[in-house]
Amino acid sequence: MGTNTQFFQIAAIIISLAAFGEAFWLYKWVKALPASNPQIASIGKLIKNGANTFLKKEYETLARFCGVAAIIIFVFLPSPIWMGNPLDNVIVVVAYLCGTIFSAIAGKIGITVSTIANMKAAEASTKGIKPSFMAGFRGGAVMGMAVVGSSLLGVTLVLILTDNTTALLGFSFGASSLALFAKAGGGIFTKTADISADLVGKVELGIPEDDPRNPAVIADNVGDNVGDVAGMGADLFDSNVASMAAALVIGSDIDTINGNTINSSMVLCYATLGLLASIIGVATARIGKNGSPTRALNSSTYITTGVFAALTGAATYAFNFEWRIWLASIIGLLVGVIIGIASDYFTNDTKKPVHIVATASESGPAFTILSGISYGFISAFPAMIGIGVSALAAYKVCEPLGPGYAMFGIAMAAVGMLSIVAMIISNDAYGPIVDNGRGLVEMGDLGDTALEITDSLDSAGNTVKAITKGFAIGAAGLTVIALLGTFISEVNVKITELNIATPDLHMPALTGFDIMDPLVFFGLLVGAAIPAVFSAMLILGVQRNAQRMIKEIHRQFNEIIGLREGKKGVVPEYDKCIEIATTGAIKELVPAGLFVIIITVLVGFIGGVKATGGFLTGNIISGLLFALFMSNSGGLWDNTKKYVESGHNGGKGSDTHKAAVVGDTVGDPFKDTAGPSINTQITVVSLVASLLSTFFLTMSIF
Amino acid sequence: MGTNTQFFQIAAIIISLAAFGEAFWLYKWVKALPASNPQIASIGKLIKNGANTFLKKEYETLARFCGVAAIIIFVFLPSPIWMGNPLDNVIVVVAYLCGTIFSAIAGKIGITVSTIANMKAAEASTKGIKPSFMAGFRGGAVMGMAVVGSSLLGVTLVLILTDNTTALLGFSFGASSLALFAKAGGGIFTKTADISADLVGKVELGIPEDDPRNPAVIADNVGDNVGDVAGMGADLFDSNVASMAAALVIGSDIDTINGNTINSSMVLCYATLGLLASIIGVATARIGKNGSPTRALNSSTYITTGVFAALTGAATYAFNFEWRIWLASIIGLLVGVIIGIASDYFTNDTKKPVHIVATASESGPAFTILSGISYGFISAFPAMIGIGVSALAAYKVCEPLGPGYAMFGIAMAAVGMLSIVAMIISNDAYGPIVDNGRGLVEMGDLGDTALEITDSLDSAGNTVKAITKGFAIGAAGLTVIALLGTFISEVNVKITELNIATPDLHMPALTGFDIMDPLVFFGLLVGAAIPAVFSAMLILGVQRNAQRMIKEIHRQFNEIIGLREGKKGVVPEYDKCIEIATTGAIKELVPAGLFVIIITVLVGFIGGVKATGGFLTGNIISGLLFALFMSNSGGLWDNTKKYVESGHNGGKGSDTHKAAVVGDTVGDPFKDTAGPSINTQITVVSLVASLLSTFFLTMSIF
Repeated sequence: MGTNTQFFQIAAIIISLAAFGEAFWLYKWVKALPASNPQIASIGKLIKNGANTFLKKEYETLARFCGVAAIIIFVFLPSPIWMGNPLDNVIVVVAYLCGTIFSAIAGKIGITVSTIANMKAAEASTKGIKPSFMAGFRGGAVMGMAVVGSSLLGVTLVLILTDNTTALLGFSFGASSLALFAKAGGGIFTKTADISADLVGKVELGIPEDDPRNPAVIADNVGDNVGDVAGMGADLFDSNVASMAAALVIGSDIDTINGNTINSSMVLCYATLGLLASIIGVATARIGKNGSPTRALNSSTYITTGVFAALTGAATYAFNFEWRIWLASIIGLLVGVIIGIASDYFTNDTKKPVHIVATASESGPAFTILSGISYGFISAFPAMIGIGVSALAAYKVCEPLGPGYAMFGIAMAAVGMLSIVAMIISNDAYGPIVDNGRGLVEMGDLGDTALEITDSLDSAGNTVKAITKGFAIGAAGLTVIALLGTFISEVNVKITELNIATPDLHMPALTGFDIMDPLVFFGLLVGAAIPAVFSAMLILGVQRNAQRMIKEIHRQFNEIIGLREGKKGVVPEYDKCIEIATTGAIKELVPAGLFVIIITVLVGFIGGVKATGGFLTGNIISGLLFALFMSNSGGLWDNTKKYVESGHNGGKGSDTHKAAVVGDTVGDPFKDTAGPSINTQITVVSLVASLLSTFFLTMSIF
Repeated sequence: MGTNTQFFQIAAIIISLAAFGEAFWLYKWVKALPASNPQIASIGKLIKNGANTFLKKEYETLARFCGVAAIIIFVFLPSPIWMGNPLDNVIVVVAYLCGTIFSAIAGKIGITVSTIANMKAAEASTKGIKPSFMAGFRGGAVMGMAVVGSSLLGVTLVLILTDNTTALLGFSFGASSLALFAKAGGGIFTKTADISADLVGKVELGIPEDDPRNPAVIADNVGDNVGDVAGMGADLFDSNVASMAAALVIGSDIDTINGNTINSSMVLCYATLGLLASIIGVATARIGKNGSPTRALNSSTYITTGVFAALTGAATYAFNFEWRIWLASIIGLLVGVIIGIASDYFTNDTKKPVHIVATASESGPAFTILSGISYGFISAFPAMIGIGVSALAAYKVCEPLGPGYAMFGIAMAAVGMLSIVAMIISNDAYGPIVDNGRGLVEMGDLGDTALEITDSLDSAGNTVKAITKGFAIGAAGLTVIALLGTFISEVNVKITELNIATPDLHMPALTGFDIMDPLVFFGLLVGAAIPAVFSAMLILGVQRNAQRMIKEIHRQFNEIIGLREGKKGVVPEYDKCIEIATTGAIKELVPAGLFVIIITVLVGFIGGVKATGGFLTGNIISGLLFALFMSNSGGLWDNTKKYVESGHNGGKGSDTHKAAVVGDTVGDPFKDTAGPSINTQITVVSLVASLLSTFFLTMSIF
């Protein structure tokens, strides 16, 4: 590697450390906010302990899973240990473990801060919207900085220490396998608690949300943290690493041919500048005294976007990168924004779909469901076209640069789309913090003004969430298309090796996957069915788990004397509900995770690389479709319920409201368990296929 | 053409006429059954008139649409009229119109008989299960014979008169465009009426199903006929013609190269034997005095399957056809049966999924929906694998025969799967007839024993329906894969022409579609989103229409004095509801139908043949997934409701039952509007693409 590369590597490390620095400063700032209310402190402590208990149990299970995976990786990757250099296997296994550990640490940091920031946001709400917003936003930003800082740092360290693409994919697979379980497990936990608390509390007993009498209320708040903060962070850690890994693998393939390092440098440079732009965006985020929190969140996102475009433009000029590749990144970023805006249209309560679903709900819950599902289906259309157009445009823009550049363009579009991921995570983690804050205000009896303020902060979190989710799915879409390119790259490296080892072999290079090849078509059909089955397993998991928890809530209300009436000093056994959510989530996530990995391996060993190519493609296409449909339907139902609660179409307590609650309950696992887990599912499958590509090439039945 | 071909053509015509003969005999038999109850006669007449009114209006709208399509076809196909021989254009347009007319006539015959058979089945039920079953089954079989007889006759006549593959595709497109609107329009009509009748009658007022006071009750019964008899018949007419057309196009391509006609003869021979097997199967269908109607229906299906296998085996031996192709057909048939059995598992009320959804419903409608959707998702998995495996097996079995045979094998698997389609239609049309019969028994006050008998006949219809639907989707799946082959064939015919016309052109033949080509990938993403949008448009159409009808029902109950109380002589204005369902269905189906056609044309002109190939593939894959998911979820909810009504999990009137009714209402447009319409949607899109392939090849932007 030349000096040039080292320059970008050092820059990446410096900016990563700067991100950690900003995270630490924000953490200190949040921590220094006043905390005087003893009741909030005591409930906050319950939430914190619950979250840590879950995280500990989850990480224990994951450690076992990753341990087994590490042994398998050590024995077989990059080549069976008895055939290659064992040192290579050690490198890949260490990279894999680092991927899991870096992601886990970022998750732990996020949880630690979010379970402090929620209390601070609650207390600050008595002083106005401004301090409360800042507590929520800066708490979330710690997570954003920690996730992106550690993913960039991790990728750079792997590059410096190994300079080996399989190790990079191993690191990425580590991140993915953690994300698969963290997102699915956290998603099952949070929705189990949310649904159970609502169903018994709000629907059966008619007590308010976040009422401290409800035995599931703490579990619900814990769920916000473990599902929406830690789970979502792991998800975006994974996407971010995967997009960098895909771009680096394809970029360095081109570099090897050209004998330079300009493309891999460019990847690192852009990723670094994206983080820098986010650091600036976070630092400049402000809200006026009576300003709109939604506008504050969105404007800092737009600032980040603008800064990224300007910085990368300057860098492209300064370092003589290709302008066409810059354009590909900017296309990715713009399409990300467009997808976000489209998601917003289908879920925002000022737009037509929410109003139509609210009106439909007047005829009963069946119509809430039918109209919500329909708009979810339709909402996928602009996003699918957006992803298709951006991939096509990035490809066509970069194709004239030479062989390999077209696919590199797509990978760089994904890097561009994910460049502002730190900002996206900050906005996303803000949501559960202020949601928790709202709960603490209710449970701590801080008064109606504080409740109104946290309500408006919470609602801004929901609106922004739709946009960031659309963004995350779009980015995952482009990333996995690039990973398909990586898969081909990996197969061809092996084919070259085989041809050198056996001069008479003349195995042709893999150039693509022909749909008319029945193995490819077979793969397409099977791959397309996977996200459906995976989603179903998670949803059924939530359902089974919620049924267990509802039983426990009923038991407590029946057996604990004075609980139902709210007698002073009578406290429900919160920990029992946390225990059920934790055990159940871990029990339910394992089969779903294993299912997708096993099917991938089976398809690969039966149908070989061609079937695998079809399988990955089918998986990507239907995965995107299902993820978009479920996330948007869920968001739409959530906001419809809130819209009705705010007095429309009959308002709270009306039959319309009851129907809207049914929609919201169906939407919960759609949008917070299955939908976002599909992102991770398609990444995991792509990485498993890339890592095992040699075996699929040489040892398959067909 | 040689004598050999003529032999098979004459045989096809003879057997088609024999099918019409059997249909006529069955019609006479049904008509001769006693009809003495004046009340049944008067209600039956209302249903008959309603169905004919709708059919007339629908056909009028379709005539206008087909007229416009015919003009466009005349000007542009097979080549623009100013460039080629105008006679060719006349041939294609006549073939197109014949496709629509043959299908429409079959639909009309089916409706005519089903609206007589329902009355006969009702009256016969007072004499026991046997005569009532036979009335329902033989009434349905008229439809089966008419549909398959006319489709085989039509295809054979086109072959004899034109010997032109574009004309064959034109005939098929005629059948498809009729089916698209007939299935979607009938589906919207039937579910509008069904949902509205249930929601106001059963849920709001608590009056029984089919109560004559309900203003929507006649519309509901009309809907069974126009949606499930005429619509479904048009759908399977379409699939059957498309599978024969695809096999004939590919088979005669091979024949042209080999200088014989053996493969196209084989297609005709197998299709003819399939119809013959069904004639035998229908003629032998019997039920014991106290026998199970489900067993009777299934056993005649199995007899048909066995007879088909034996007859084609004998023919293959006698005419020296390739045994490998025979095997491909049998694979198709077997996989069809397997898919049917899998669908049955997910929807049958003696199996686990129904019980789990029933138990989940105890926690409220949200859980009914979540569990039903989850099992619907999972149910797609075995079927997708089944379709993939059968395509792969048929391809691999026939590949050794030489170039072109592999794709011919897939087409013949589709022909094999559809060989028993006449039997499938008979079983399918039996359902709405006995469902109507049950309604007439209720409205005609024929007593509890008769009600019990028709209930059991109705329930058998529902069970068998799940199997036939799975079958229909599987067959459509294989057919459209074969149509993809047809699309390539058509493109290559044009490429050869272009290369001859411009010797310097050297345009390479299209051999397939590479997923890594960004145009193909773009097409995949857009194509995959279409079934989702199309379904959503239909579901929203049902919803809007149902809301209009519910308003009208409320108006009648409020304004017509004595109606609610059931005062003697007070009759609701049934025709108003029929009018709303009719007008609404026609209004709602047009945008959905135009949408898919316009998008196909746009993708073709923007992205050319490559994007179109991706588009068709994406469309097939997600179309199958959505069709399976929606049909099976819908069937599952329907049977769960019936299971609860029969006394399980709290029984009728319990909260569990209310939740199950919500599931059933959501499932109605899933299983009877959107799900089965997707079949037709993917066929239409494939045929549009094949017909316009030359334009996409020469005039696209990319």
